[in-house]
Amino acid sequence: MPVFDVLTVLPNLFSGFISEGVIGRAISSGKVDLKIHNLRDYTTDKHRTVDDVPYGGGPGMVLKPEPIFRAYEEVVKQRQKKPYVILTEPWGETFTQKKAVELSKKDNILIICGRYEGVDERVKSIVDEEISIGDYVLTGGELPAMVILDATIRLIPGVLGSEDSLKADSFMDRGLMGYPNYTRPAEFKGLKVPEVLLSGNHKKIEEWRKIKSFEKTYRKNPETIKKLIKEEKLTEEEKKLLEIAIKNIRDKIE
Amino acid sequence: MPVFDVLTVLPNLFSGFISEGVIGRAISSGKVDLKIHNLRDYTTDKHRTVDDVPYGGGPGMVLKPEPIFRAYEEVVKQRQKKPYVILTEPWGETFTQKKAVELSKKDNILIICGRYEGVDERVKSIVDEEISIGDYVLTGGELPAMVILDATIRLIPGVLGSEDSLKADSFMDRGLMGYPNYTRPAEFKGLKVPEVLLSGNHKKIEEWRKIKSFEKTYRKNPETIKKLIKEEKLTEEEKKLLEIAIKNIRDKIE
Repeated sequence: MPVFDVLTVLPNLFSGFISEGVIGRAISSGKVDLKIHNLRDYTTDKHRTVDDVPYGGGPGMVLKPEPIFRAYEEVVKQRQKKPYVILTEPWGETFTQKKAVELSKKDNILIICGRYEGVDERVKSIVDEEISIGDYVLTGGELPAMVILDATIRLIPGVLGSEDSLKADSFMDRGLMGYPNYTRPAEFKGLKVPEVLLSGNHKKIEEWRKIKSFEKTYRKNPETIKKLIKEEKLTEEEKKLLEIAIKNIRDKIE
Repeated sequence: MPVFDVLTVLPNLFSGFISEGVIGRAISSGKVDLKIHNLRDYTTDKHRTVDDVPYGGGPGMVLKPEPIFRAYEEVVKQRQKKPYVILTEPWGETFTQKKAVELSKKDNILIICGRYEGVDERVKSIVDEEISIGDYVLTGGELPAMVILDATIRLIPGVLGSEDSLKADSFMDRGLMGYPNYTRPAEFKGLKVPEVLLSGNHKKIEEWRKIKSFEKTYRKNPETIKKLIKEEKLTEEEKKLLEIAIKNIRDKIE
């Protein structure tokens, strides 16, 4: 069973995450083993101190090295294996779906939740990879840890049930955007479902969806489309649908 | 007081988020008003149905329009104001710090948590903006909603206490990466704190930190540095420190 450990100063932040939804079910059904460790449990002083002022002065507190090393050693002992260690870091490598796929194949991951004020640099001697989930500042590394865990764990075989789907992933693979979705009622507040979707003509439905996906992608990321053409990742039929999509966009502009 | 509403099928996923850390304190101290709405509370059938199969077939369930519109109308009524409506969407605009700053100035935001299988397209008629937090697939829009809320709420005046700091933000502004942090002990497992930080010489410390920040940024994102030079965003002194940083990198390579 894949094993995940998380080291944080705010373990209760994870309470919803580990009990609800897809991840909650993956844990309770024994598909993955996920343990949240409170960094304060690895301190040795009366005040359970996890941070201290930075050497050289300046704002913000810095996470001390000792409790983190102590927790790391305890995790290695408990799991009887050296984990792949990730530190959430605002200036780390940007997390992507490709990275999630890679991580979903590892059997032992430890995520250390950084603090934006800083983590003692020496901690990086036990870190395999520093990861950021995007170009924005958060109050801590806990949400990034949950994002990394969520994207990774859902890819582990058996975790997504039959109701859940990997639909989005197939688009993500080629950088394309999803098509518009509709469900009942066929008319709501004067807004109608496009007729083609009610036609029962599966070929036409597929074509319409591909055209819409191309339209959306071309409008937001024309570079993605150019790249797909250049790398010959479109079938002959898809090329024809792409032409229709581009014509649709031009017709709307004119 | 800035007001936030969230619409989700998994309200309990937010339990840790709304009670812990900076956001928990911002709520309990009355700095912001954040309400999590269960989408099922806005259904009218016995089974409290929130989704249905997609018109035209295909995998995944689609969130129905009626409960979302009903919840939206209820929020407008409760808050006596039309909120700025965000839909979390894997193919929405990518969230950035700039966007967080913009959102932190709004007084009324509603986030609808999308599902990756899809939301009925007609919901978008009440949506002001579709946001993605990065190029990866998650099990739902709940973590993206928390990320958007976290990055936004921490910027609201009075939310960050004196212990918390906006240190990271100043780097983020110019696209620079943070400098290495160290705290006590001065030596740990044979790993020493750089001497300059123990020197007490504030000018030297500032210079060392800038050089380290330039080294890190230049190695990961040389384009950022080129842009800062081109847009004349570096002082004369910084240009000299940048030269030292580039020399340091070259010396290491040779």
